[in-house]
Amino acid sequence: MGEFELIRRHFQRPGVRLPPDVVLGVGDDGALLRPAPGHELAISTDMLVQDRHFFATVDASALGHKALAVNLSDLAAMGARPLGFTLALALPHADDAWLTAFARGLFALADSHACPLVGGDTTRGPLNICITVFGQVLAGRALRRSAARDGDDVYVSGRTGEARLALEHQRGTAWASTASGADLRQRLEWPTPRNALGVALAAVEGVHAAIDLSDGLVGDLGHVLAASGVGADIELAALPVAPALKALPPAERLECLLAGGDDYELLFTAHPAARDAVQTASRTSATPVTRIGRITAGQGIRLLDAQGQPQSVRVQGFDHFA
Amino acid sequence: MGEFELIRRHFQRPGVRLPPDVVLGVGDDGALLRPAPGHELAISTDMLVQDRHFFATVDASALGHKALAVNLSDLAAMGARPLGFTLALALPHADDAWLTAFARGLFALADSHACPLVGGDTTRGPLNICITVFGQVLAGRALRRSAARDGDDVYVSGRTGEARLALEHQRGTAWASTASGADLRQRLEWPTPRNALGVALAAVEGVHAAIDLSDGLVGDLGHVLAASGVGADIELAALPVAPALKALPPAERLECLLAGGDDYELLFTAHPAARDAVQTASRTSATPVTRIGRITAGQGIRLLDAQGQPQSVRVQGFDHFA
Repeated sequence: MGEFELIRRHFQRPGVRLPPDVVLGVGDDGALLRPAPGHELAISTDMLVQDRHFFATVDASALGHKALAVNLSDLAAMGARPLGFTLALALPHADDAWLTAFARGLFALADSHACPLVGGDTTRGPLNICITVFGQVLAGRALRRSAARDGDDVYVSGRTGEARLALEHQRGTAWASTASGADLRQRLEWPTPRNALGVALAAVEGVHAAIDLSDGLVGDLGHVLAASGVGADIELAALPVAPALKALPPAERLECLLAGGDDYELLFTAHPAARDAVQTASRTSATPVTRIGRITAGQGIRLLDAQGQPQSVRVQGFDHFA
Repeated sequence: MGEFELIRRHFQRPGVRLPPDVVLGVGDDGALLRPAPGHELAISTDMLVQDRHFFATVDASALGHKALAVNLSDLAAMGARPLGFTLALALPHADDAWLTAFARGLFALADSHACPLVGGDTTRGPLNICITVFGQVLAGRALRRSAARDGDDVYVSGRTGEARLALEHQRGTAWASTASGADLRQRLEWPTPRNALGVALAAVEGVHAAIDLSDGLVGDLGHVLAASGVGADIELAALPVAPALKALPPAERLECLLAGGDDYELLFTAHPAARDAVQTASRTSATPVTRIGRITAGQGIRLLDAQGQPQSVRVQGFDHFA
């Protein structure tokens, strides 16, 4: 199977109509998009590599899902509506069954976000998946890391830590040995990007900064604080805790909650006057959000116990290159 | 060196001002571009893998150049002006000298096209370079593969075949053994994308289809013909021949000219009434173009000798996956 046949068989979908903002899709030197007037184009790219972002044993359809999900999550964190994506794929060999499953997971998520494949590239090589995703957001309304302000509430969507617990369980880590269940593995392999919430938040006056949680809550919050020149107080007792995490020893539970990685939840900040509007955005997007602290004029992150006393907690962000 | 430090040291350029159409560059969840009103956004992506697109021995700065050049060439073939690009990079290890050279070649070409790096991703893994490039073109004016019409002239920019000859020389192929010289190697490792020509052509009434030559003239022309539902007569005597190719045996010379690969020249078609305007576009972009044949109502490609008689020539397109 040559490159063109591989693309035709697995990645061209003659029955699927392109939305009107995609002027030209797969099959030319490039794609053509037409963002709506008055909008900016948001762009994000992520590269997934075996043994670093996934194991060889992962289900190919889950991999197709996750490769797009992590990119959609970046658009969500900007408040941008997805328009389309490109896929560049290096494959050690053309395995029809693998490609069929990969495409199934990929397109199921793409279709559910009305985000068509508009172009790509395939080559032979060590397995590597590089997706670049495009979205649009009203000019000036994108949620940026640098926009957090002293006094903002800090929110997180969903719950953090389950993906990390699932990863440690797969790795055979002792403290994660009792964790199990399809739900947990689902959180690691089939993350849900929070695009409906992100788009709803970008429309709320008073929602300031946002980031998606890929490297862990503390590490990613740190990026927002550094970019905004502010600090944050996080109330440990306010963090949403998944049932699977409740049985963990306290130190490991905190490690998962604060430095889990692969959560793909949104962390965002908003003026306290926007609390009702944030809850409305949460309801209309059917995405739970929890207020977990506030932005301060200080530097760095203070973790507060139930009595409001700062705690010393050692956690580490997740660095894909380290 | 962690991921963030690697990006900061080699890919953030605080002294370089972003053009006004880049609202937000490297450092957030995504980039923000603002295409000019009335324009469409052209997008292309290419993935380069060691031993398939380049050898381990290639100079890293040449690799940085080529990785962006092949993408800019796709924009050229659409007639789109470059706006920016993302870079996803998998590296087996963080080698400072290699990264410095890679970035030098990459940014020299980017700067010469006013095409800034707007985002990216880095990870550890087998060497893989995935660039996605964005450009803008007046709505409805993009040059498409499907737009060739019966009676059009067929043109090629520059000359084809030198990159292939250089590749065969590097491989130690007998018939390429006498070929040598820095010029030839330059054509393989430092291709010149034809963006000024592409942009000029998109503004010419009567220029119809275009494609960039990455897989060889015959193979890429075949894509235009298939997409447009037409045929073509190509005059073998009209093909521009580089001095280095003149010494080759006739069969190998034709193989290089017609199926060379890695040329990154533009092949395009235009109504005969546009001949003067095409020559003006060639002059203003300082890019030679040669008329090599015409589009017919037939099917496939006929290769004509100096007497206008069809020749039987076996050449093969280059399929990166085969």
